[in-house]
Amino acid sequence: MKIGVIGGGQLGRMLALAGTPLGMNFAFLDPAPDACAAALGEHLRADYSDPDHLRQLADEVDLVTFEFESVPAETVAFLSQFVPVYPCAESLRIARDRWFEKSLFKDLGIPTPAFANVLDQADLDHAVIEIGLPAVLKTRTLGYDGKGQKVLRKPEDVVGAFAELGSVPCILEGFVPFSGEVSLVAVRGRDGETRFYPLVHNTHVNGILNLSVASSNHPLQALAEDYVGRVLKQLDYVGVLAFEFFEVDGGLKANEIAPRVHNSGHWTIEGAECSQFENHLRAVAGLPLGSTAKVGESAMLNFIGSVPPVDKVVAIDDCHLHHYGKAFKAGRKVGHATLRSKDLATLQARIKDVEALIEG
Amino acid sequence: MKIGVIGGGQLGRMLALAGTPLGMNFAFLDPAPDACAAALGEHLRADYSDPDHLRQLADEVDLVTFEFESVPAETVAFLSQFVPVYPCAESLRIARDRWFEKSLFKDLGIPTPAFANVLDQADLDHAVIEIGLPAVLKTRTLGYDGKGQKVLRKPEDVVGAFAELGSVPCILEGFVPFSGEVSLVAVRGRDGETRFYPLVHNTHVNGILNLSVASSNHPLQALAEDYVGRVLKQLDYVGVLAFEFFEVDGGLKANEIAPRVHNSGHWTIEGAECSQFENHLRAVAGLPLGSTAKVGESAMLNFIGSVPPVDKVVAIDDCHLHHYGKAFKAGRKVGHATLRSKDLATLQARIKDVEALIEG
Repeated sequence: MKIGVIGGGQLGRMLALAGTPLGMNFAFLDPAPDACAAALGEHLRADYSDPDHLRQLADEVDLVTFEFESVPAETVAFLSQFVPVYPCAESLRIARDRWFEKSLFKDLGIPTPAFANVLDQADLDHAVIEIGLPAVLKTRTLGYDGKGQKVLRKPEDVVGAFAELGSVPCILEGFVPFSGEVSLVAVRGRDGETRFYPLVHNTHVNGILNLSVASSNHPLQALAEDYVGRVLKQLDYVGVLAFEFFEVDGGLKANEIAPRVHNSGHWTIEGAECSQFENHLRAVAGLPLGSTAKVGESAMLNFIGSVPPVDKVVAIDDCHLHHYGKAFKAGRKVGHATLRSKDLATLQARIKDVEALIEG
Repeated sequence: MKIGVIGGGQLGRMLALAGTPLGMNFAFLDPAPDACAAALGEHLRADYSDPDHLRQLADEVDLVTFEFESVPAETVAFLSQFVPVYPCAESLRIARDRWFEKSLFKDLGIPTPAFANVLDQADLDHAVIEIGLPAVLKTRTLGYDGKGQKVLRKPEDVVGAFAELGSVPCILEGFVPFSGEVSLVAVRGRDGETRFYPLVHNTHVNGILNLSVASSNHPLQALAEDYVGRVLKQLDYVGVLAFEFFEVDGGLKANEIAPRVHNSGHWTIEGAECSQFENHLRAVAGLPLGSTAKVGESAMLNFIGSVPPVDKVVAIDDCHLHHYGKAFKAGRKVGHATLRSKDLATLQARIKDVEALIEG
């Protein structure tokens, strides 16, 4: 079976590493000459809306999937004429636009911070009155890793904020005094079977995910599964979906969804019986889903900007390096380490070992 | 770091799957147009003794390693002029020739079945008198999976046996009434650090490995480590080496060594903290070695001739498919399943599940 992937970054690379042992081959559509997934499959180097290359991809592969959600709607529609596409166009339409996304949460009764659609400065002024300050102005599309957003704390911050974010459609979100951020990675098969990984505690630094720690028997697991299950069912979703929540007053408020394998699920490569990458491929290929159970206690630390010396990373017990083969650049995710330890105390010690390398 | 691999079969493929997350790139020299490792790296399609392509490989890579031992000595000597080669030429010289191999065991005080060098039929006749029947006549080089050998039970079997095996240099081995076959996979770093995986019980069918089960606290572990350690030290070996033994009267008799990652170590992909593939790459690259400890109870079943339907394989709990992406052909190793279970009873049940698929 040949899988077409829109995007050829590290997520595509890890999909190929998981799918090759299942007998799958891969083709990646990515305009970047140095797309790091290209080492593991065919690289169609073209723009995401290039019809000739999209057609070529559709002709070559058995199905198409995505490693990022900001794919133009026309790309998805075009591909869908010729080849099965998972997750479906509607899932991508919702997930790539914060307004559609939050509106879906609201429609499904999933708690989420107060929000308002902001199409111009007047909308923003009005929304600030309604929602209050502090609040966060976010572009509806194309935001990631803290990009495309601005925290508004004082009335002066509101002035000209819409223009500052590029005068593109935005939403204003009420600022939530959260005690923590958690994510739930879920997978749903073509037949509707759904499985959930354990909730993961996430820590961000400068808006970029830094550390994810998989939980055991988290008291909010069942609630999170209920919320995520509603979205998966509503979208008739196929594949892996990650759902980020704020922990607020012992409950959850929905932040956002990613219709793809997700950074907060990278620990599953060694830390779960079947990784998010393999499970995504199983789902889109119509195969039975794999176990989402943990193997030991597990965490993931991102390497941002550079990967520490490989000999030092692999010298740490319980540590598994995942180097993305990308050029080092400030703020860029270039690798991660999965830790898999026998108990939490050991895991916490190993996390410190890796952190010391990153800081060193 | 770019690694050159002589051979582009499934062992090369699994080396690349293990090395890519370490940030390594791969080039495979293999004359076969459909070499299955080629999906994961550059494919230099040329004969193993083609000097132009060997030179190209040496120029492109940081070091060269092997996925099979029957590499011409001149190939190794040629490459060694330009690039580090691991394991060393002497290790390959010994391991690819049963006469040198057995002689080394004898020199190092490692028990091995009685053996004699057989360069013509007269040698064979003489050796049969000395060693007795039953005995096994084996070609000194190029034998694998039961090929290149003939069991001699009666005096009539001896007549013309040397010609039957092609009139090439052979050894005669005394037949050993063994109670089981075990192998020890070891890894030795450039600095001499050595680690051993748990002993593995192997079952062969028609001379081809069928099932490997990793042991826990095997009473012969320390003895096997002693024997294997002697060979590793003598050869100043770098990389993974597999050592096959017969279990005889509660002791071990050396059968053969393979100077490479080995089929009886495939279970380590999921079943050990660090797989034999990653540890081989760590060793040859001069990185610290990884833990050889087991994760749960583990076994490996080969798929020979064909891989059962993928949906049925992955539906088995605890089962991890490794499809080699090779054309199916009778007698050919085309994939394997690793089982990793929480206890031995569960593992035994899962082995039966996979066996039922293979037979079905």
